[in-house]
Amino acid sequence: MYTVIFQPSGSRGKVEEGTPVLQAGRDLGVEIEAICGEKRTCGKCKVRVEEGFFERYGIESAADHVSKWRPVEEKFINEKRRGEGYRLSCTAKVEGDLVIFVPEESRAGGQVVRKAATDRKIEINPSINTYYVELVPPTLHDPLGDYERLVAGLKDEHGLEERPRIDYHVLRTLPDVIREAQWKVSVAIWDGDGFPEIVKVTPGKVERSLGLAVDVGTTTVAAYLCDLHTGEVLNTDSMMNPQVPYGEDVMSRITYAMSHPEDGIKKLQDAIIEGINTIAARITEAVGFTHRDILEMTIVFNTAMHHCFLGIYPEHLGLAPYAPALHHSMNIKARDLKLDFALGANVFVLPNEAGFVGADNVGVLIAEAPYNQDEKVLIIDIGTNGELIMGNRKELISSSCATGPALEGAHIKYGMRAAPGAIEKIYINPETKEPRYKVIGKEEWSDQIPQGEIGTKGICGSGIIDAIAELFKAGIIDKTGKFVKGMDEQYERIRRGDDGMEYVLAWADETSIHQDVVITIKDVRSVQLAKGALYAGAKIMMQKLGYESLDKVILAGAFGSFIDREESLVIGMFPDVPIAQAYAVGNAAGDGARMALLDKTKRAEADEWARKVEYIELSVEPKFEKEFMMAMHLPHMKDKFGHLAEVLEGEGLDGLVKA
Amino acid sequence: MYTVIFQPSGSRGKVEEGTPVLQAGRDLGVEIEAICGEKRTCGKCKVRVEEGFFERYGIESAADHVSKWRPVEEKFINEKRRGEGYRLSCTAKVEGDLVIFVPEESRAGGQVVRKAATDRKIEINPSINTYYVELVPPTLHDPLGDYERLVAGLKDEHGLEERPRIDYHVLRTLPDVIREAQWKVSVAIWDGDGFPEIVKVTPGKVERSLGLAVDVGTTTVAAYLCDLHTGEVLNTDSMMNPQVPYGEDVMSRITYAMSHPEDGIKKLQDAIIEGINTIAARITEAVGFTHRDILEMTIVFNTAMHHCFLGIYPEHLGLAPYAPALHHSMNIKARDLKLDFALGANVFVLPNEAGFVGADNVGVLIAEAPYNQDEKVLIIDIGTNGELIMGNRKELISSSCATGPALEGAHIKYGMRAAPGAIEKIYINPETKEPRYKVIGKEEWSDQIPQGEIGTKGICGSGIIDAIAELFKAGIIDKTGKFVKGMDEQYERIRRGDDGMEYVLAWADETSIHQDVVITIKDVRSVQLAKGALYAGAKIMMQKLGYESLDKVILAGAFGSFIDREESLVIGMFPDVPIAQAYAVGNAAGDGARMALLDKTKRAEADEWARKVEYIELSVEPKFEKEFMMAMHLPHMKDKFGHLAEVLEGEGLDGLVKA
Repeated sequence: MYTVIFQPSGSRGKVEEGTPVLQAGRDLGVEIEAICGEKRTCGKCKVRVEEGFFERYGIESAADHVSKWRPVEEKFINEKRRGEGYRLSCTAKVEGDLVIFVPEESRAGGQVVRKAATDRKIEINPSINTYYVELVPPTLHDPLGDYERLVAGLKDEHGLEERPRIDYHVLRTLPDVIREAQWKVSVAIWDGDGFPEIVKVTPGKVERSLGLAVDVGTTTVAAYLCDLHTGEVLNTDSMMNPQVPYGEDVMSRITYAMSHPEDGIKKLQDAIIEGINTIAARITEAVGFTHRDILEMTIVFNTAMHHCFLGIYPEHLGLAPYAPALHHSMNIKARDLKLDFALGANVFVLPNEAGFVGADNVGVLIAEAPYNQDEKVLIIDIGTNGELIMGNRKELISSSCATGPALEGAHIKYGMRAAPGAIEKIYINPETKEPRYKVIGKEEWSDQIPQGEIGTKGICGSGIIDAIAELFKAGIIDKTGKFVKGMDEQYERIRRGDDGMEYVLAWADETSIHQDVVITIKDVRSVQLAKGALYAGAKIMMQKLGYESLDKVILAGAFGSFIDREESLVIGMFPDVPIAQAYAVGNAAGDGARMALLDKTKRAEADEWARKVEYIELSVEPKFEKEFMMAMHLPHMKDKFGHLAEVLEGEGLDGLVKA
Repeated sequence: MYTVIFQPSGSRGKVEEGTPVLQAGRDLGVEIEAICGEKRTCGKCKVRVEEGFFERYGIESAADHVSKWRPVEEKFINEKRRGEGYRLSCTAKVEGDLVIFVPEESRAGGQVVRKAATDRKIEINPSINTYYVELVPPTLHDPLGDYERLVAGLKDEHGLEERPRIDYHVLRTLPDVIREAQWKVSVAIWDGDGFPEIVKVTPGKVERSLGLAVDVGTTTVAAYLCDLHTGEVLNTDSMMNPQVPYGEDVMSRITYAMSHPEDGIKKLQDAIIEGINTIAARITEAVGFTHRDILEMTIVFNTAMHHCFLGIYPEHLGLAPYAPALHHSMNIKARDLKLDFALGANVFVLPNEAGFVGADNVGVLIAEAPYNQDEKVLIIDIGTNGELIMGNRKELISSSCATGPALEGAHIKYGMRAAPGAIEKIYINPETKEPRYKVIGKEEWSDQIPQGEIGTKGICGSGIIDAIAELFKAGIIDKTGKFVKGMDEQYERIRRGDDGMEYVLAWADETSIHQDVVITIKDVRSVQLAKGALYAGAKIMMQKLGYESLDKVILAGAFGSFIDREESLVIGMFPDVPIAQAYAVGNAAGDGARMALLDKTKRAEADEWARKVEYIELSVEPKFEKEFMMAMHLPHMKDKFGHLAEVLEGEGLDGLVKA
């Protein structure tokens, strides 16, 4: 066992010899970015080994306290950085006492959470009802059992004709609780499967019955604490998904589970369960309750997070033909999942549609309910995958596009999550080719702040869309995404870098990472691939349904709420609609979870429509490849501004794409 | 920590200073009799502190290695024994290294189990059905989820229209199991509550589906391993109830739980759960299966054992008005009880009738089904309490008599459980007043074996009934139970002892405990109280039902199987019926558990009749006391033999009792 100290956090502790530094960080609560799931392909987990630190304390040099340099590290760490002690923390192993510095760009966490509860009209018809009863204590002439006495009271005072079951753990404590309460108790009855069950008995009259709706995103866990009888959102809270240290995206986590067959899935499950227990304690205590007051939880996530939450080994989900373990919803006792809620609490897991279309998409589906509408709707939920639902009450289809994580900022040279320091809005002057931008955490634009105080760190998803659209509008890149020839000779910001042509968005002295933040030709290509997949997916779906046009486009998800609708149209992310008919609805997946919590008929709807929506596997569609190639192009424009204005007023970009 | 060695078993280990010797025994696996639950009232836990033993090994004397003599011990240990080092092990505490000798009469365990499965006609209609399916693996064009694929297979191949739920833990392993099995699996579906659930998925075709029926007696746990599809009993097994070390009777265990509020109930629950896990492993392995193959268990017990099994604090059951936590049956996941069966296995707990009439009596009820008969039946289930059911299809009532444990051999000076060395049959020559007897474990009668080889240790329940009846028939005691005056002057075996008059059944040299085994006047009184309670209870019930006579008397329980019907009539244990109409049915409670396992309609019957049977609380019946006083007498007889013969041919003893 060796001592490892992480700077600048100062976290320290003992780890076993041979532990990768990244793992040591996890063990000691230091979150280092690990986008690729330790496949040594992302290079995000760079750390600096602080040699000599121990020497100050009379301890030998740390130089040989870490495993040997490996060739794979050369891909991400240049000679100069290597000289400064930089290593890939997934690759370098602890072989002695160490001090490790985690540079700002390698630190995970600190994310801005943009998943507030949206104000939606929800019917109140929960699966939990709470009844107050005052019972007559038993006597020698009336020695009826406690449970039967309770059942009789429920019948006499509330007309409950059907005898509810009682949860075993509630039964165990019943004799004591009911006597301490002097036979005056509140009885919570769950009826989520047509066979009512007593799930909590509380002394006296309870004021509120609590439920929790949870949306587990790949990066963010959002929770809504609701009063089950009024529907009121009592509190909201969120945290970074505690599985992030095991891989930033879904495939990385599946890879992690598969490459750690002994306990990988258990670690992923434990992480999210512990996270939900933490958030449950926090969200209830803030409003004067405890996690033991939570009577039911509903939860949505993508299929991989679904499997990890349930502790189902996700190997088969990650390999063709990508069959999930199940599609249907599940009712599971909270205790079976080690969730520390009320004794008999239930967890309702929303159904999955298909291997790539999870319960979160079903949440969006029941929140937007296109199956109750006449309009031809496209709902886009952009996460690491783009998930599409199209149709109306006549017919509904769905598909999933492998957009890659580019739209979330991953696989982009300076891409990052929506966290302080991330560029989120950009404007490029078409004459001077000079940019202005806004970073998360600052109110002002970059040109209104002294350079040294901007603190730019990278670009988040909405910033990347803006950047590509602005580069195109400013004539810096053409419709194929190439940099227009000769510009690098005229403008300093346009130059040739390691990855080919690049445009400097922020000079090193505007940043906190002391490097120029650039958009590279590779970044442009990644976004083209992503938006091309979305666009082509939507086109194929329109063909399937025989649609000539759409009536509206709904952007769901945090990403959808922040991207610029005009810029999305500029780069051609989705088929043309009048701009007023393209709008964001925020965290519709979370709203779906909340609706399922408060209205049990929504659960039946979820199961019904999760199965009725026809899933289109795009990769087996013969026309997909051609559509995809075409959709990769940026829309052609006759003149940079005039025509765009026309387009945005309704003529549409759609024809132009094909032109 | 001190070392304690128990002889003659040789068990040894370290225990903490201040641990009572009885507890030290438990901790080291040495079972010492503790009938009173450590209330220092039974004196059965005597042990001998072996002083000087350590001296042989150069260790100081053990004399001061045990806590000081306490006055309460004088009640059970005379001066001579005290001098030999005898102590009450519940009272003496470890204060240094010790060697403890446990005399044979203080040793628990080694009991003869008399709970074989009776051959009864049982309908086969289990709540578990197993289906074999061969599925088509998923493809990119047919990526249906594993669970839905299984459901589709069950529908296509077996016509199961209703979609079964799936147990969460079964779902977790489904993707791996189904692929390892190459999509050919056996699916066990439980349908015990009208809402089917997949509880096990096994690769390939399974030959048998296993269920376990368990009867937890106060002293014995009996288990029957059944094939759920054929009804066949594959194996039976039994063990001493592992709760015996915490108190031999029900009230002692309730007292134990109440006097150890921090963990008493948990220890009692853990003991029985661990016991059942042990028996489940043994009973399955012996026939080539494992405990993980058990798909369902049904279980019966008295109300106190019911509460202890479920971990329900039994305080309220032990205090007036004796209301149980519940009457109804329960379905509980085996894992919620820490029972290690198949992943999704269910435990069906049979319903209780009343605070003193438990699921075991309901087992008897559904096994004998008096509610389907025209004859006026009395069913007597003699355990620590006597439980009575009376009636027919028109009306059924039940009651419970506080017989005390005398009929099971407790509170009888030389009473013991039915174990080797226990006298079980007795004949007393009315002329010479000399006895012959049979002990458990020997084929021959006592007068056919050399005295030194008989190995008598005490008297079990059936022996006690015999002894009282024979003492009465031989004219040694009169109808009031008193010893006839002057006999002690004529016969050596009749003498005055510490507890008053006594009759020597076995001289010290016929025994393995080197003491005369006697029946005392106090013992006779205990049996009179017990049989009086039974008889009076039955009379009150007859009055309630307006019965002049009974058509049959059924003796249920191990005790009932071994007592002599004639002798029972002699002492007047139950109202008179023709002797052919009084018969024993063996362990009917266990048979009821087995019937509920194999035929789910029996479960509905159990719940229905447990509630329909009217429970008569005898202690609040105004006539009970008078009946009881009368019934204490032994039946008066004009002449000792002639008239008895007549009686046994049908005239009946009933009238005589009142004479």
